[in-house]
Amino acid sequence: MRLRGKKNAPELLANLPNLVITEPTAHKGKWSQVFGNDRPIYVELGMGKGQFVTEMSVKYPNINFIGIDMYDELIARASEKAMAVSERAGGAEQHPSNLRLMRANIEFMETFFEENELSRIYLNFSDPWPKKKHARRRLTHPRFLEKYALVMNEWGEIHQKTDSETLFEFSLNAYAHMEYLMKDISLNLHRDGIHEEHVMTEYEQKFFEKGMNIHRVEVLIGEAAVKQHREAKLKGMK
Amino acid sequence: MRLRGKKNAPELLANLPNLVITEPTAHKGKWSQVFGNDRPIYVELGMGKGQFVTEMSVKYPNINFIGIDMYDELIARASEKAMAVSERAGGAEQHPSNLRLMRANIEFMETFFEENELSRIYLNFSDPWPKKKHARRRLTHPRFLEKYALVMNEWGEIHQKTDSETLFEFSLNAYAHMEYLMKDISLNLHRDGIHEEHVMTEYEQKFFEKGMNIHRVEVLIGEAAVKQHREAKLKGMK
Ligand SMILES: C[S@@+](CC[C@H](N)C(=O)[O-])C[C@H]1O[C@@H](n2cnc3c(N)ncnc32)[C@H](O)[C@@H]1O
Ligand SMILES: C[S@@+](CC[C@H](N)C(=O)[O-])C[C@H]1O[C@@H](n2cnc3c(N)ncnc32)[C@H](O)[C@@H]1O
Repeated sequence: MRLRGKKNAPELLANLPNLVITEPTAHKGKWSQVFGNDRPIYVELGMGKGQFVTEMSVKYPNINFIGIDMYDELIARASEKAMAVSERAGGAEQHPSNLRLMRANIEFMETFFEENELSRIYLNFSDPWPKKKHARRRLTHPRFLEKYALVMNEWGEIHQKTDSETLFEFSLNAYAHMEYLMKDISLNLHRDGIHEEHVMTEYEQKFFEKGMNIHRVEVLIGEAAVKQHREAKLKGMK
Repeated sequence: MRLRGKKNAPELLANLPNLVITEPTAHKGKWSQVFGNDRPIYVELGMGKGQFVTEMSVKYPNINFIGIDMYDELIARASEKAMAVSERAGGAEQHPSNLRLMRANIEFMETFFEENELSRIYLNFSDPWPKKKHARRRLTHPRFLEKYALVMNEWGEIHQKTDSETLFEFSLNAYAHMEYLMKDISLNLHRDGIHEEHVMTEYEQKFFEKGMNIHRVEVLIGEAAVKQHREAKLKGMK
């Protein structure tokens, strides 16, 4: 099924009810029911064409993934990828059963997710909004970080990647301002070549090919995530 | 007095007893006596030719400064600068009375300074030691951070600048590992041109002219510094 560029993408998407979520607010507090299990839920905010979240869902079948973006066209592209990765994986599924795609505006996040419902948020190549007067729109502005902290549980982490030097600088300062613990800060993720374990996004591939620096950081928000990190440090594993 | 390139630099330096400290361990716990007052003491570790520490001492007369490096030749160069800045400032002093220069190995820091004796440490363009096997020599290795924390008082802060992407990445991770609060992280200090308030070092000027990125961070170590920072955040000043 080719959905791309079709004017009637919305109707086609409605025919994939186990992949595409059409009413984001309908499942608040009930995402475990959507997935049919209690496994951790990882969300990518602004997934674009969906390469990252679809590949991750195949790579980590014991995690539930939700990819969010604002445009039907992108949900359609990501749906195609979801079907393609399933086919490539050679399974019987039409698309990964641990993946959902959802058209929604991140601004209203707290209407889609209940407190403690998510375990991880991925921010990949979020719009940098370079003008100072647009700082509030950056997805790592403290007003967003507060929303994320609310909907994440005790294991909550943010994993961010970006090419943007200014967005990364802003984000590090925002995390520091919130007094969040950070780890694995990288100012040039692919300095020593591509690491297999880091699934690449569409933007990442493009920027990497241009030889641009990719920045990355993991932020520990939940108490259990912080505790685990501290114990690992004590054991000298870090 | 021109000291540069003179073979007998050590003897000449001995003639500047109020500027050059020849026995670093002799003043441990007694630096207030050296300066004749109880004002905060800021130290630059690896001052090189001394432009930064000498200019800072003129700019902030109510702070006591100590510049440290390993080579007599550099102490001589820095002494010349100390005399030049005094002359330029038009005062009667031969060199700033709130400045000392000292040949010493940072490795043995705890033999020069007593616990709580310092208020700030500047790390400007420290050697990056890029090879992994030399990581322990980097001045932001946790083993050094522990020394710094020991000799700094409740107002203790580290202010770091570097051109090195790899040293900065390593340093941010080291601060995060120690769970130190960071602020004013910059990945490109002179993005919008030179800021008057940031006194430049020799290396900084050179790298800036080549169009290279300067990275900078302030790290809050002392409890009072952390408390003040938190209060300022609450007041919305940050
Ligand atoms: C620069 S793209 C990055 C796409 C993808 N993560 C990648 O790395 O290739 C940013 C994406 O975020 C989406 N986005 C921006 N603001 C959003 C919002 N408020 N709600 C939902 N999606 C948003 C945009 O539509 C766009 O697809
Ligand atoms: C790259 S230079 C930077 C000089 C100056 N801070 C600047 O920004 O222009 C580093 C300096 O650190 C000094 N240094 C390195 N390791 C040292 C140590 N263990 N003890 C004292 N000085 C040291 C070196 O001698 C050198 O002058």
